Amino acid sequence: MYQLLDSDTICAVSTPPGVGGIAVVRVSGPDAISIVDSVWRGKPLADAITHTVHLGDIIDPDNPSEPLDTAVATLFRNPRSFTGEDVVEISVHGSRWIQRELVNLLIRRGCRMAQPGEFTRRAFANGRLDLAQAEAVADVIASSSRSAHRLAASQMRGDFSKYISGLRDSLIEIASLLELELDFSEEDVEFASRAHLRELAATLLTRISSLAASFSTGTALKDGVPVAIVGEPNAGKSTLLNALLHDDRAIVSNIPGTTRDTIEDTIEIDGVLYRFIDTAGIRETSDSVENLGIERSYDAISRARIIVWLITPDLSPIDYASLRDTIKQHLSPETALITVLNKIDLLPERGSMSENSTTINCDLMTVNDFADESGSDAKNYFVSREDSVTRGDVVSDGSSMSKDNIIKETIDNEGIFLKISAATGENIPALLSMLKDLSGANSVEEADLIVTNARHYESLIHAKSSLERVIDGIDSNLSGDFIAQDLRETIHHLSTITGTITTTDLLKTIFERFCIGK
Amino acid sequence: MYQLLDSDTICAVSTPPGVGGIAVVRVSGPDAISIVDSVWRGKPLADAITHTVHLGDIIDPDNPSEPLDTAVATLFRNPRSFTGEDVVEISVHGSRWIQRELVNLLIRRGCRMAQPGEFTRRAFANGRLDLAQAEAVADVIASSSRSAHRLAASQMRGDFSKYISGLRDSLIEIASLLELELDFSEEDVEFASRAHLRELAATLLTRISSLAASFSTGTALKDGVPVAIVGEPNAGKSTLLNALLHDDRAIVSNIPGTTRDTIEDTIEIDGVLYRFIDTAGIRETSDSVENLGIERSYDAISRARIIVWLITPDLSPIDYASLRDTIKQHLSPETALITVLNKIDLLPERGSMSENSTTINCDLMTVNDFADESGSDAKNYFVSREDSVTRGDVVSDGSSMSKDNIIKETIDNEGIFLKISAATGENIPALLSMLKDLSGANSVEEADLIVTNARHYESLIHAKSSLERVIDGIDSNLSGDFIAQDLRETIHHLSTITGTITTTDLLKTIFERFCIGK
Repeated sequence: MYQLLDSDTICAVSTPPGVGGIAVVRVSGPDAISIVDSVWRGKPLADAITHTVHLGDIIDPDNPSEPLDTAVATLFRNPRSFTGEDVVEISVHGSRWIQRELVNLLIRRGCRMAQPGEFTRRAFANGRLDLAQAEAVADVIASSSRSAHRLAASQMRGDFSKYISGLRDSLIEIASLLELELDFSEEDVEFASRAHLRELAATLLTRISSLAASFSTGTALKDGVPVAIVGEPNAGKSTLLNALLHDDRAIVSNIPGTTRDTIEDTIEIDGVLYRFIDTAGIRETSDSVENLGIERSYDAISRARIIVWLITPDLSPIDYASLRDTIKQHLSPETALITVLNKIDLLPERGSMSENSTTINCDLMTVNDFADESGSDAKNYFVSREDSVTRGDVVSDGSSMSKDNIIKETIDNEGIFLKISAATGENIPALLSMLKDLSGANSVEEADLIVTNARHYESLIHAKSSLERVIDGIDSNLSGDFIAQDLRETIHHLSTITGTITTTDLLKTIFERFCIGK
Repeated sequence: MYQLLDSDTICAVSTPPGVGGIAVVRVSGPDAISIVDSVWRGKPLADAITHTVHLGDIIDPDNPSEPLDTAVATLFRNPRSFTGEDVVEISVHGSRWIQRELVNLLIRRGCRMAQPGEFTRRAFANGRLDLAQAEAVADVIASSSRSAHRLAASQMRGDFSKYISGLRDSLIEIASLLELELDFSEEDVEFASRAHLRELAATLLTRISSLAASFSTGTALKDGVPVAIVGEPNAGKSTLLNALLHDDRAIVSNIPGTTRDTIEDTIEIDGVLYRFIDTAGIRETSDSVENLGIERSYDAISRARIIVWLITPDLSPIDYASLRDTIKQHLSPETALITVLNKIDLLPERGSMSENSTTINCDLMTVNDFADESGSDAKNYFVSREDSVTRGDVVSDGSSMSKDNIIKETIDNEGIFLKISAATGENIPALLSMLKDLSGANSVEEADLIVTNARHYESLIHAKSSLERVIDGIDSNLSGDFIAQDLRETIHHLSTITGTITTTDLLKTIFERFCIGK
């Protein structure tokens, strides 16, 4: 059970699990100093001042002839510590055995093994951090890209909390005017002009709504922007992935996806973490196993934030049209589609083409020639393709095409069109800059506030709907006490974000997701 | 290239690789303090006294608006640090991203990425540790059992170095007497009585020899005592492994063996690390694939320090004899063999057997009945089996049967015999205590000096052979200068152990085996 006041002393290994040069065991609580002193051969920590470091031996009093290790102990006296309690950090040689034995020894001397996140929970309980800041500690630790780190670090520093507190203060101001009015209700005064109240509430609603709307960007940046690379078999998906990798130093890892057979490659490019979702080649088939794979590709399309649809010059217009319809059918409204013509290095006339030529290659001419016979889809195919190649080229020149424009066109038109060669690397930088535009990372760099935490999102959605009721109430000329009720509810939901209002169950849920030792 | 005097400043993550609550980046060298100060927003470390801890922000001077992290910096001024140089340890949140960025930032500000073991090498270069102690640092970190830790920690504290230095001092004393004699050679005095010299040399030779002989025990305890469990298919190998595991809290991991298809289970039981080598069931077969597996079993037998040969009551006497011959054929002289009759819980008459019955079960009676027909092997089988069951029982009662006796009997006789039930756990403690006896761990607990390092072993072997030449020289009445030459060589070899004499190549070889950050 979680309590807010802690009378016991906890310990845990705080460094990453495994073997290393050094490992740090953290001890926090009222008996931290005396417990460590009981296994310490060296200057007693009880006599030391805060923020000092001491060399000594770790000794099991039951076996004093054989020190466990020579260690460095760092003393943080309350309240000048991470938790606000007395804290001793013991730095030992990082063998698994020493780490385990030291924790066991401390437990035998009266410590309790810390629960996940318990150090941070104590920091919250002792007012060192508010709840949103405490939650950000786990996010900072889990961050694996510049964007994710930036979001989490900003939240940990309190930027987000400050903004939420500002909103809350404004709401409290409105509420207090209303409450005052209620106190004088018999005199029928109206301290708060309804028009002014409505305007204030509407402004706050806009802010809360746009915070809530940032959640999908926040999640994508935190967990990796899901990008599905789809296309016919042999369109060059692996080559593209390798090209993206070579373009920039990056981390690659294979993490199992939500579907057991889907493998996702997580890659950081230019500060943004992407989750490239490998998909089966999409085509009409009666093979039931292959269809299962294709079903998963559809699933990947619906989960992705960005679809990179690879086509090749060999794709027939009929297949193009049919694939396009299939993809669009599974596309969710927020998903951006980039259609990428790959293998342009294989186009035969390329060398002789003029820069401004509107004709891409023989195949496309053929498409055009066939257009009337193949119906309007193929005609559109050519037009959109023609059109977009120009657009893609503009982007690769570093034009100022805005994110909003790109996303809008993505939904309205055939999608953004870009021609590349994954094999030679041509136009890969343009594709990368498009991916970054669509990822939402730029708004992070512009220091926009972005919600990354599902709990905060949920509170914002609740706050939003009760604030909408406030506005409805004003519009319907409801009496002040009804409006005040909805206002109080809005304030309540914002308060849960920073932990001004909280419950032990909530705290339990939040901190059990932490790693042990933090 | 390794140099002994270091003018540059190095940095590395010193905590285990991966994600954790905190990670520590260590910076050491003449510019450690100024480099860290250049990325530090907080009280300048240049103004701080040694062994103090400071809270601040890590700032990239090229991007000062966005701190990398809030960090704790610990200052160790030379010579009061691990390396003997100025050292700053920076403790940050343990995300992969922060760790990587902090190291990159420090490198941009003038640090060099530390080579493996470079911090320890600098500690050696600055006289903080001798070479044997420095080598033990890596062993302490790699230790994964109490015995391995005890050996490494004792060596790191300097117990081993002290012993070697003692031997070396005695040799130097003999040598100086001899050298003195050489100075007065024209006067034909004999300062050192040859008999006395010989006695001293012989004593030292005994000590060096027994140190060298401890190496096989040392290696086994350090890397895990190799135990091959062999037997016919279905003898209960997995059940036994599980029973050993359940009997004691233990760590299990699957590590790939030297042979690609061999899996070894590493288990710590009662402070000793064992490497249980899984073997294919041994039997006569013409299946070439199966024979490959059986070949590997033979290989496991020859590599093991202890063989646990599991037999069951169902094993026919002919198969028993044939298996025994096969196993013995592959047994090396130092290997101990424990023959274990498993599945005693399935013996039908068990309940009605008297304690001292010499008859184990129907099957064995049958063996006996068939003895004459099956030849002497089966007869021996019965006798040895009968005999040893009693012996096994004695051991399980905690008798004082000495290690030497056990090993001797192992080689001379059929091996130690023990009856167990892996399924019910019966007599598993007896098996465990036998394994521990045979592992050599008890001599570690008796604080015997044991060599664990191949380099030290090699030096001891060299020292031993030159000291043998010294004794031969005395016995052959060689002149003092020849004897002195061999004595100097002996001293040289001992000196390389503690690093009194060393070369840069040797240092390179030693420290490149370390992890980075130590």
